[in-house]
Amino acid sequence: MELKQDNYSTHISQQFNDELEEIRTELLTMGGIVERQVHDAVEALLTGDAEMAERSRRVDKQTNDMEVMIDERCTTIIARRQPAASDLRLIVAISKAVNDLERMGDEASRICRHAIELVEDGDSQRGYQEVRHIGNLVRNMVKDVLTAFARNDAELAYHVAKQDKAVDLEYRTAMRSLMTYMMEDSRAISSCLNVIWVLRSLERIGDHARNMSEHLIYLVSGTDVRHLPLSEIKETAGISDSTED
Amino acid sequence: MELKQDNYSTHISQQFNDELEEIRTELLTMGGIVERQVHDAVEALLTGDAEMAERSRRVDKQTNDMEVMIDERCTTIIARRQPAASDLRLIVAISKAVNDLERMGDEASRICRHAIELVEDGDSQRGYQEVRHIGNLVRNMVKDVLTAFARNDAELAYHVAKQDKAVDLEYRTAMRSLMTYMMEDSRAISSCLNVIWVLRSLERIGDHARNMSEHLIYLVSGTDVRHLPLSEIKETAGISDSTED
Repeated sequence: MELKQDNYSTHISQQFNDELEEIRTELLTMGGIVERQVHDAVEALLTGDAEMAERSRRVDKQTNDMEVMIDERCTTIIARRQPAASDLRLIVAISKAVNDLERMGDEASRICRHAIELVEDGDSQRGYQEVRHIGNLVRNMVKDVLTAFARNDAELAYHVAKQDKAVDLEYRTAMRSLMTYMMEDSRAISSCLNVIWVLRSLERIGDHARNMSEHLIYLVSGTDVRHLPLSEIKETAGISDSTED
Repeated sequence: MELKQDNYSTHISQQFNDELEEIRTELLTMGGIVERQVHDAVEALLTGDAEMAERSRRVDKQTNDMEVMIDERCTTIIARRQPAASDLRLIVAISKAVNDLERMGDEASRICRHAIELVEDGDSQRGYQEVRHIGNLVRNMVKDVLTAFARNDAELAYHVAKQDKAVDLEYRTAMRSLMTYMMEDSRAISSCLNVIWVLRSLERIGDHARNMSEHLIYLVSGTDVRHLPLSEIKETAGISDSTED
């Protein structure tokens, strides 16, 4: 009888583990789609490919559906499995991360919309170098935070959070350039504004990647590091002081 | 023995209910702070009151702390009480709503920052009428969605979601005006851009109010209405077809 009970518990617990692994896999799948969408949105803009922008924009529907589906699954697991401690943390972190991914997808769609407008305007390429540069930084953040989730790697997550500072700095510099372009040539105002919105969306995607990295650090360490300065996040993530900053 | 058990259950369940009511109250308290912050941010801008903007900007720290605190409380309740069905929905909806409130607070802080820059620039009042108008619409949305949460009123929540459409329309009209101002007078570009960011923040606050209304409809109806068209939200919220649209 006891053995049977044990087998039963193992069975239940194995099933539970499978369910947890499943939502983590779904998060990573959704992450891959969003990563691709961000990539395509930036490429479509830089190459003036309105068709690619239109295609990438439609992906939004898919990520919206995935958000609702994963969220529902999280709630069902909580209701049925009544998880405690670290299991509950995993579910909470995934639910929050999925929300950030969905918002990244929204921003990627916005980039596509502006890419299409820029093509229609006869794009002047003003500010494109800034978009390429910040786009690369942000895409790396998205890639890294997904890797961090796949590996439960708090140190990599911390580096993503740190990278967000660099993006914010580049963003402010780029905004100043765009403002100068507009002042120099008022006919460029409309297209410069489109580029400004794109830069803003990229900066927001960086913010969401940083949020995701904070959710992962919460998952690994049990400490909610949102709104904390980088130095405290570093400590929480268990990174030794010798790491270069 | 059975009676004792019953007393015990009632006691536990009463405590549980108290805990649920407590987080709902905390959500409403936080909502009141954010509502005030949005109000003050817009007023500070319109009256050119940099000191008020600076004061209101600092409120952000308080809403950040409240978000983390309420979120932690939600997780603790889930872990200890293992709630099912509607109780779990309440906790999930509150946790999501708190996240939206925090982001509204972020946007209000951004408005304050731009208000300060506008004062420093010697504000030209260009676009202020648009800010006043959209500010009023958005403030009403925030007020209404909090009332909806206080009363579990899905119908009022639906009207908030509907109102978001009106805000988006006004926002696009305002953006066109601002672009014209910039083209007419390139010296106004810097201050117009500040106003543009403010309008964008207001529009985002409206988005978050709409998100909150969707969380409430989920709480009341059990259906996740995110990303659904208004007509379906209306149906889910149980609003009869005779209601004017």
